[in-house]
Amino acid sequence: MAKEITETPAMETIVTLCKRRGFVFQSSDIYGGYNGFFDYGPLGVEVKKNIKDAWWRDMVHRRDDVVGLDSSIIMHPNIWKASGHVGGFSDPMVDCKESKLRYRADQLFWAAVVVGDETIGYVSVLEDGEMEAEAQKQADSMKRKLAKQGEMAPLQLLDYTEATPDLYEKIPSPATGKPGSLTAPRDFNLMFETKVGPLADSTAVAYLRPETAQGIFANYKNIVDTGRVKMPFGIAQIGKAFRNEITPRNFIFRSREFEQMEMEFFIEPGEESRLKWYRYWLDWCTDWLVSIGIDRDMISEDVHPEDKLSHYSKGTTDLMFKFPHGVQELWGIACRGCFDLTQHQEHSGKSMEFFDQDRKDRGEEPFKYIPHVVEPALGVDRTFLAVLTAAYTEDEIPNDKGKPEKRSLLKFHPRIAPYKAAVFPLVKNKPELLERARGLFEKLQRRWSVAWDVSGAIGRRYRRQDEIGTPYCITVDFDTIEKDGTVTIRDRDTTEQKRLSEDEVIAFLSEKIDV
Amino acid sequence: MAKEITETPAMETIVTLCKRRGFVFQSSDIYGGYNGFFDYGPLGVEVKKNIKDAWWRDMVHRRDDVVGLDSSIIMHPNIWKASGHVGGFSDPMVDCKESKLRYRADQLFWAAVVVGDETIGYVSVLEDGEMEAEAQKQADSMKRKLAKQGEMAPLQLLDYTEATPDLYEKIPSPATGKPGSLTAPRDFNLMFETKVGPLADSTAVAYLRPETAQGIFANYKNIVDTGRVKMPFGIAQIGKAFRNEITPRNFIFRSREFEQMEMEFFIEPGEESRLKWYRYWLDWCTDWLVSIGIDRDMISEDVHPEDKLSHYSKGTTDLMFKFPHGVQELWGIACRGCFDLTQHQEHSGKSMEFFDQDRKDRGEEPFKYIPHVVEPALGVDRTFLAVLTAAYTEDEIPNDKGKPEKRSLLKFHPRIAPYKAAVFPLVKNKPELLERARGLFEKLQRRWSVAWDVSGAIGRRYRRQDEIGTPYCITVDFDTIEKDGTVTIRDRDTTEQKRLSEDEVIAFLSEKIDV
Repeated sequence: MAKEITETPAMETIVTLCKRRGFVFQSSDIYGGYNGFFDYGPLGVEVKKNIKDAWWRDMVHRRDDVVGLDSSIIMHPNIWKASGHVGGFSDPMVDCKESKLRYRADQLFWAAVVVGDETIGYVSVLEDGEMEAEAQKQADSMKRKLAKQGEMAPLQLLDYTEATPDLYEKIPSPATGKPGSLTAPRDFNLMFETKVGPLADSTAVAYLRPETAQGIFANYKNIVDTGRVKMPFGIAQIGKAFRNEITPRNFIFRSREFEQMEMEFFIEPGEESRLKWYRYWLDWCTDWLVSIGIDRDMISEDVHPEDKLSHYSKGTTDLMFKFPHGVQELWGIACRGCFDLTQHQEHSGKSMEFFDQDRKDRGEEPFKYIPHVVEPALGVDRTFLAVLTAAYTEDEIPNDKGKPEKRSLLKFHPRIAPYKAAVFPLVKNKPELLERARGLFEKLQRRWSVAWDVSGAIGRRYRRQDEIGTPYCITVDFDTIEKDGTVTIRDRDTTEQKRLSEDEVIAFLSEKIDV
Repeated sequence: MAKEITETPAMETIVTLCKRRGFVFQSSDIYGGYNGFFDYGPLGVEVKKNIKDAWWRDMVHRRDDVVGLDSSIIMHPNIWKASGHVGGFSDPMVDCKESKLRYRADQLFWAAVVVGDETIGYVSVLEDGEMEAEAQKQADSMKRKLAKQGEMAPLQLLDYTEATPDLYEKIPSPATGKPGSLTAPRDFNLMFETKVGPLADSTAVAYLRPETAQGIFANYKNIVDTGRVKMPFGIAQIGKAFRNEITPRNFIFRSREFEQMEMEFFIEPGEESRLKWYRYWLDWCTDWLVSIGIDRDMISEDVHPEDKLSHYSKGTTDLMFKFPHGVQELWGIACRGCFDLTQHQEHSGKSMEFFDQDRKDRGEEPFKYIPHVVEPALGVDRTFLAVLTAAYTEDEIPNDKGKPEKRSLLKFHPRIAPYKAAVFPLVKNKPELLERARGLFEKLQRRWSVAWDVSGAIGRRYRRQDEIGTPYCITVDFDTIEKDGTVTIRDRDTTEQKRLSEDEVIAFLSEKIDV
């Protein structure tokens, strides 16, 4: 029996495992890395694909009311004017004129140093777990240097957006430690800009999409016109999006290039319809996370208070997950009203009204309206990190001699595991056994992603598969070829084994994987 | 029996069908479109996904010697310096200083107008099927205006890169019709440029990848170090790439944003190994195209002559396909030698040598070497267009009264079809029948993408599914509920029907689809 040690793993543990076993590499590693960009290696790409495929299957194929879409990353720039991103998709930024470095103003903290009744100067620190201690150190040093006597008031750290304009000249730059070089905070647009076409003037400016959602709104009319859809209905899309984060961090949680799985669910206007679908999608999303192997206990709901909602939102709840770096947003479910379609109607001059035949048949007014929207928006990379965090386990199992031995394993749901099974010949120097194992492997490989391993003792091969999350190890041994043709199949989590015929193995795997 | 009318459909037919049935829309359609960008609608996204999934399954899952990768679109700019793209990935471009328009110099044609022995001027036209007639018209008009007598020599059209510098001032701009405003041709880099990070200076410049291949080379070392690979082995990747084409054209054949399926197959250096794998991949690729429903007759090989090879190439063959706009490149199979890895070794300072244990064990020198590469590089969008072109069929089938009637259908391979099957209740006002059909539909929907249609006569529903390429239509009728539980299953291509039990339907579909 396996004895489990469960707690959220440290980010360092995850990052190291990801690199060592080929799940995720820093992008451009051989060139010293590239901040905010990541590459998914041989195992990572499988996990990522499994997440996307599971979402697509459950969100599109297994539903009658959702269709798919794959719109381009670069779209007409007017789309981003209509959506408000050109004007308003920004973070506050502050420059240090001397070092030429830039900071996110809401991540740069400062405090007045008050000794007795006198303000003797200001200190600044960048957001960090240690920032209070660091600020205190700076303040103490300042007091010492100026040889000030008296008691220092406790430091009150505020972020730079809360500084009054007279302080911009007084707060020291974190780069130089000296005041006088920081600018006022200003808006920094997070969209990556490029130029399309041979002309390099301002008419050529275009953007890499910062979300996939606008591609859906921009195609709503074409889909309504050609897709035989009935209200309510959804349009789902998976694809890359880009945000020029000033300070990307927390591994793949906040990167500059990421992938989204977004669905816009178009509904009749009205409180009743909104509340119904808002709750429906919150529950659906939670259940879906559970279905791919995330513990319900690790998920919580964070309801945005009304005064913190985006101007277009009539309600937003985030599904929060206990990541290695804290409880953070995983899936945002937002009631966007009819904001986006109305904006596109105004900017494009095309009507976004939906003609609702069912309402007309029922004699309900209005039967022509701009639909409202409930949007579940999920990041693939965050889901990847959540799945990995939830799967990471350390436990103790008996070794060959029956003594408890530590192991680390990934308890991936079979839907998500990079390899669904591994096939081993018990020994590699027995041709008949090898051939039999190979035959089974090739049969399984026609249908699933499967590993083949002939090197080392069986116990070592089990551990190797445990560490990358392969749910089932199948061993062809002497009984297989000499007795009844059955093979052993070992369960990753319980380490229990049973003997099955080859046909039974296929039926068993199918039942576990193709859910 | 169906009587077929087969010939390559016109591009117009394909484009219209794509829009009407929701396969492909012009990007940003409601804003007047965006040149060189396309969106895949509800049916298109399924076909595209099926192409990618089939490739991934056959290229990665079903092989022992290929692993997958998903690297970022934006990578360290030094990667593009090492690969030669910053210096050399360009098309020749010419500016019209007056109109500010730009042209691809090799698509701008000109000719001297010679009357008698005298050159009376020059004409210019943009590349086009009609360009010779247009040039002649211009020349005739010039002769008339100048009131020149004598016979005009036949016009000899040359492209602008072939003009001598003294002619740049003399060739009229296609925009204004007047000479004096065209510049000398200069190189226009096709990579989209952007800036990463909060600094907007030259250190921030980055590029959208123009090919996925370099992401593979940049990760080669990490994969060798972590992936337990043996020579020869491949790294496969599917993902978006971007080229700022001066004149995108031919629908999704040459667009500015596209998706690639590339695989770099690393081999031992040497002629023997190269020739073996070059031929192997040419055959594999051809067979794969056939496996997704492309007629072998529509594919041909175009071997690049030695003097036309890229500087790094030791042999390239394109698999050509008969597209609506002509026989054009679909899949390029290139022997890239060790050019890319050597470049990255030089620029990154990291060794790209492979330690070949097998060669060492055999006592073969060298057992440390930079591997050579055979690269099969395929575009998803071009494959989509090829699959659609090959599938498009017009034939005649008997109507309800037995008279021949024209129909258009898409003969997609079941692997590629957006819906694998459609389920119909024969009539919609019989609850028992409706419920039975719905039950079967939901069972199939757990496993595949399946359509449900209750509207209109069965014949009309068949035609609707034929037009979008659904291979099988399953009808639940009165016999199903009153007699033996069997349903009819109709074959799209032959229109033949047979009766099967529900279990037989599932086994039948599985055999046809999951190949």
